[in-house]
Parts: sequence; structure tokens; C-alpha cells
Amino acid sequence: MTAVTFDLLKTDERTRARRGIVHTPHGDIQTPIFMPVGTAATVKAMRPEQVEEMGAQIILSNTYHLYLRPGHDIVKEAGGLHKFMNWNKPILTDSGGFQVFSLGKMRKITEEGVKFQSHIDGSRHMLSPEKSIEVQHALGSDIMMAFDECAPYPADRDYVKRSFERTSRWLERCKAYHEEYCERNGGESQVLGEGVNQSLFGIMQGGVYKDMRRESAAQVVDMDLPGYSIGGLSVGEPKEIMYDVMDDCVELLPKNKPRYLMGVGSPDCLFEGVERGIDMFDCVLPTRIARHGMAMTSQGRVNIKNKKYERDYTPLDPNCDCYVCRNYSRAYLRHLFKADEILSAMLMSTHNLHFLIKTMENIRHSIDEGRFSEYKKEFFDAYGEF
Amino acid sequence: MTAVTFDLLKTDERTRARRGIVHTPHGDIQTPIFMPVGTAATVKAMRPEQVEEMGAQIILSNTYHLYLRPGHDIVKEAGGLHKFMNWNKPILTDSGGFQVFSLGKMRKITEEGVKFQSHIDGSRHMLSPEKSIEVQHALGSDIMMAFDECAPYPADRDYVKRSFERTSRWLERCKAYHEEYCERNGGESQVLGEGVNQSLFGIMQGGVYKDMRRESAAQVVDMDLPGYSIGGLSVGEPKEIMYDVMDDCVELLPKNKPRYLMGVGSPDCLFEGVERGIDMFDCVLPTRIARHGMAMTSQGRVNIKNKKYERDYTPLDPNCDCYVCRNYSRAYLRHLFKADEILSAMLMSTHNLHFLIKTMENIRHSIDEGRFSEYKKEFFDAYGEF
Repeated sequence: MTAVTFDLLKTDERTRARRGIVHTPHGDIQTPIFMPVGTAATVKAMRPEQVEEMGAQIILSNTYHLYLRPGHDIVKEAGGLHKFMNWNKPILTDSGGFQVFSLGKMRKITEEGVKFQSHIDGSRHMLSPEKSIEVQHALGSDIMMAFDECAPYPADRDYVKRSFERTSRWLERCKAYHEEYCERNGGESQVLGEGVNQSLFGIMQGGVYKDMRRESAAQVVDMDLPGYSIGGLSVGEPKEIMYDVMDDCVELLPKNKPRYLMGVGSPDCLFEGVERGIDMFDCVLPTRIARHGMAMTSQGRVNIKNKKYERDYTPLDPNCDCYVCRNYSRAYLRHLFKADEILSAMLMSTHNLHFLIKTMENIRHSIDEGRFSEYKKEFFDAYGEF
Repeated sequence: MTAVTFDLLKTDERTRARRGIVHTPHGDIQTPIFMPVGTAATVKAMRPEQVEEMGAQIILSNTYHLYLRPGHDIVKEAGGLHKFMNWNKPILTDSGGFQVFSLGKMRKITEEGVKFQSHIDGSRHMLSPEKSIEVQHALGSDIMMAFDECAPYPADRDYVKRSFERTSRWLERCKAYHEEYCERNGGESQVLGEGVNQSLFGIMQGGVYKDMRRESAAQVVDMDLPGYSIGGLSVGEPKEIMYDVMDDCVELLPKNKPRYLMGVGSPDCLFEGVERGIDMFDCVLPTRIARHGMAMTSQGRVNIKNKKYERDYTPLDPNCDCYVCRNYSRAYLRHLFKADEILSAMLMSTHNLHFLIKTMENIRHSIDEGRFSEYKKEFFDAYGEF
């Protein structure tokens, strides 16, 4: 049964930064890695081979969105998500947990799961640990995430305690449901095919309370899963608090498994996460800000809407060799944005994804060469203030 | 001075269909040809090399739009439209005439030109024959169109007569302005560079009145220009009337110059135009209907929004070998449209442009092989009703 395994290649001598390889049914992922997000079975405004060409090794897709539209049964009938969306490299699917909790008054949490109303048409649904895994089985992702509650910030100790303990019970149910499925199908994914299976990652919660993070970590690690995620960070807390919690809790996860920090993708957070031993990141940030005319560059953010770029015939980022920077000027990109042209989102997304993917590639090289800390300093000397 | 010339290669024995080559500063165009439209310096939802890869030999861009935004001076400073938009093959620019006349109450026609208000911000402007050519000089297109009035349909004889006669006087002014510019600049375009110049095409008008078409044709042909266009058709008149007018007036244009039918791009009109001796066509149709979820296929139109495609895992067009039909299903394309994903417009536009460009390629082959009429019949037997 080919599922996900991890090789730890090297740990930095001066920090906790590490190099590794995640082996998946659709190929290997060099870590640390940034995963572009393809919410609705498309990385927004990108052809999939463009995402691959710029060096993306894995993408994330959203269980909540695909469950509602087009429906996981349709994706399954199409041969699974890889085939449906024409992406033949690894895919990680989230559990839908974060999305249904974000619905606010349109959802209700019980021990069984979460009842919610669709943001599309108001129709009523229920996601539970079992249902989330069932949907992810239908999608056929390489890595499935456990159904968890991402507690909000701020939240009091009592709320967070009840929440992470339920998340641990839900994780047991996710694991049991997946194991039954494996047994039923001879250890194979019905979507991925012969000799291949999906893998379940657990999620540690506990908010900003270090004692609860420790307790939650102990519970999820006890499940002996092929990978673990830190959830519930970057949900509104100040960055110093986030880094402080990470200082403490990344090392609670086993060294020989990949560690994934969910929903984080700004350059500063990527460096700070890597420094603390995180291997995997995902975020909608690069493509979302792209559609609003914001670029990430080696010299900091560029707001292409700015009047000062009207007659600027230089590339978006003078130090970038991406398709956009090789072929277009800031003046042209500003024009496209002002004219509300689709090519604006296409090109800005291309650049931003390329920027984060190349930054991660550079981070990997710097760890290989034992100069991660130096690279971090160089990067931020050029990038400037956040 | 390298400008536009035309070689007539062959005329069909049974129809007036013809094969030719238009030589331009940015390369040769095999005719008959369909020209994708890149209104605001972008073929909507397409990277330029994707347009080139599918076989587009020339695109059209709009003087009115680029004059207003970003401004022709900015395009000129950027090194001209080719460089600005990263398209190194021929470009034809229209004159802005059609767009300003379409503004209705927001424009006023005088002998001098047309005063109008911007559709973007209501600001007041004037386009005249001289101004239109000045803007097109700044854009640096290979082929410039004369500033004309496209009379509406229906319009009475008196209106059409006054209109086409003014269009002829305007053509004289366009030509004179361009000739002065050439003299001032030693016969070179200031944008296109050494030894290269732009070429001006004249436009015949006359509405649906054959006697006026003849008169208009005589006047524009008298100017001895490198190419001629038929304007004022496909503006609301029944197709039979359009074809009837074309029966009469295409042959009024000289055989040794390219003939361009403006704003026409549905498959039936392309075949009927070619059959009557037209060499060049342009239309926003393929990309516009693409953004509304409509595909042109070998079996007729497909409305991808239709519920019946929800679980249709076959390609958009079973007889198509384009990027979209090779890699995606109708179910996926329907999902993208329903989810309002940018990739929907990208893929549907890719397919539709490919379809028209390949159809034109097939038309050229069929003329080469002396079986245009047979190909036309085959095409419509498969395509069905319009």
C-alpha cells in the first residue's frame, strides 16, 4: 500500500529548520514547501501546467467547496480530483472544518459534527468526521486532513479545552472511518487505484494556550499518523503570539513526520515557520492579493494600482525571472488592472505564486548549504518592513 | 519602406473564394484569415503566446479603447502596442469610428469629426480623421483603418448618402495626414522603427443600398490604398440582406488588394464571406460568448451552463484537438462556469478561438485543394442549424 511517508534529510545546526522529502502516490515533495491553493478544483486564474512549470510540487483543494459544488460524487465519477482538474502531482485536501466554522451563525456544532447552511444557496448540510473523510475519499487526494474545529481568537480557556478535546475525539473517528474504508477496499483507494492509498494527517489545536497545545499534541501524536498539522494559528492573533506558541509546540510533533502549518503564506510567516521546524504551508494570499492588484516582490509589496506605475516600463520585480517579469511592464500590468481585464489576475497570480515558490526553493537551498539564517537576513534586508 | 502588400495566390473555380498572403512588417498572413480581437491590448483571458500557438496570425486592437485607457502616449512610450502587450505578430487597429458612433447620445458628428464622452468617466473628447491616425501612429499597428462612419441599420437613403460621402472626405484627410507623417519621418513609423511603416486601409460604406455601395467603392478605390474594408454590414440587418449586398459589392474592390469584412465572426458569415471573395474577418464573438459559457463546436453551439452536462465527462468537442478538449471534460467546464472561476473564461476562450482559427485554416486548405464548396457543405452538415 503506497501512501505518504517522510524522509528527514537534514536539520539546520543553528535553527530548527529542516529539509525533507514527503513521498506521495503522485510523486515526491521537497520540503519545506509552499502549497498553492486550488479551492474549487482550480488554482484561480491559472492553467494547471503553469502552476507545475513554476515549480509547484503539490496543491491544496477544499473539501467544503467541492462537496457543495460540483459535488464529490461528480468528482469521483470523473475519476477523482487529479483527473477532473488535470493536475497529476500531489493534492492535499482540507477537511472542510475551517470553512464550516467560518460560516458563523449559519452553522451549529454538536458532538456528532457540524450542521450548516451552504454559502451558495442556503441549503442545509451536515459535515462530520465520517462525512469529511467520505468526501475526501471521493476526491482521491493524496493527503486528507482530519475534521477539526479551528477555535477562534480570542477564545477563553474553557472554550478552547472543550474544542480541542472534541477535535481529538473527531480525529479518532476520522481514523477509524478511514481504516474501515481501507479494510473494505483491500488497502486501496477506490479513486487512486491499484496498490495506492490516501493518507490521513491529524491536526493539533489548543489556541494560544501552551499547556493545551501540549495536551492536544500528545493526543494526536498518539494516533500514529503519517503527518501532523498545527491548526488554529494565524486566525487573528498578533504574530508575536503566533511565533511564541510555535516556539513551544512545533517540537511536540515527532521529528520523523511532516509538520504542516495551515493557512499561512506571507513571506515573514514562511521564514519564521521554517525556522521553527515547519515543513509545509498553504495560503490563498498570493492569488487573492494578486486579484486585488498586489504583488509580492523581492523589494516588498507593489500595489500595481498606484498612479506612479502609470509610465513605469520596468518589470514588476527587477530581480525576478518569471514569465510576467520577463515579458511585461508595470505600466502594462497597471493598465490591465484598471481596465478590469482577466489577464490582470492571470499575470499577477503567476508572479505571486512564482515568488513564493522560488522563495521556498531558495530556503531549501539555504538549508542544504547551511546558511538559512543568512538567507533569511538577506531576504528581509531587501524586502523591507512588513 | 516595408508596408503592407498582397499576393493573390488562387481564386476558386466555382466561387469567388480566394487564397492570398498579406505581407506586413511583422510577418505574413495567410488569407482568408480570422483575426481575434484584443480590444484593450489583450485578447481577453488569453496569454498572447497562447493566441499565437493556436495559429492566430494577426490580432485586432481598438483605437478608441487604447486612446482612453491607458492613453496612446503611454503605449507609444512603451515602444508601441506590440511591445506593450507582448505580441510580436501583425496587429490591425480599427479607427475608433465604430465605437464612438455606438455611444449614441454621448456623441455628436460634425464635418470636423466626432465629439464624444468617454464611457469610462464621461470626460469629453474629439476623434477626427487626423486624430484617429495620430493615435494609430502612436500605437504602431501594422494596419491602420480609416476613420469612418458606420451608418446604422435601418437608415434612410439621405442619411446613408450624406454619411458615406463624408466618410470618403474623411478618408482623404486620413490619407493626407498619414502621407505628411511619412514625409516628415522619411517614410518610417516612429514606433515600428527603421525602414518600416504602417499601412492605411480604406473603408467602403453605403448601407444596404447597392447604388451607394458602388459609389462609395469607386471613391475609396480611387485613393489607391494597400487594402480595403467593407464596413456597415452585420449591424442589425437580416443576414440575407447582408449576403445580398456582399454579392454585389465585394467585387467592386480591386482583386489585387486584401478585402476585409469588419466585425463578422460567426461560422456561417465566415463561410459566406469567403465564398464572396473576402480575405479578412474580425469579431469579438468567440471570446465574448466564451465568457458567457457558450462554445462553438463542430456539432454546433454548446451551452456549458446546461444541466445535462453536469455529469458529461466527454470533451467539449469530440472532433477538436485543442488544449481544452484534450485535457478537460464538459462536467469540469460546467463546474468552472457555475463556480464563477476565471479559468472558465480562459478555457472557453481558448477553445472558441481555436475553433474559428482552425476552421479558417481548413477553409484555406479547401481552397488550395479546389474543394471549398464541399468543405462548406461538410461543415454545415455537422454544425446544424444556426
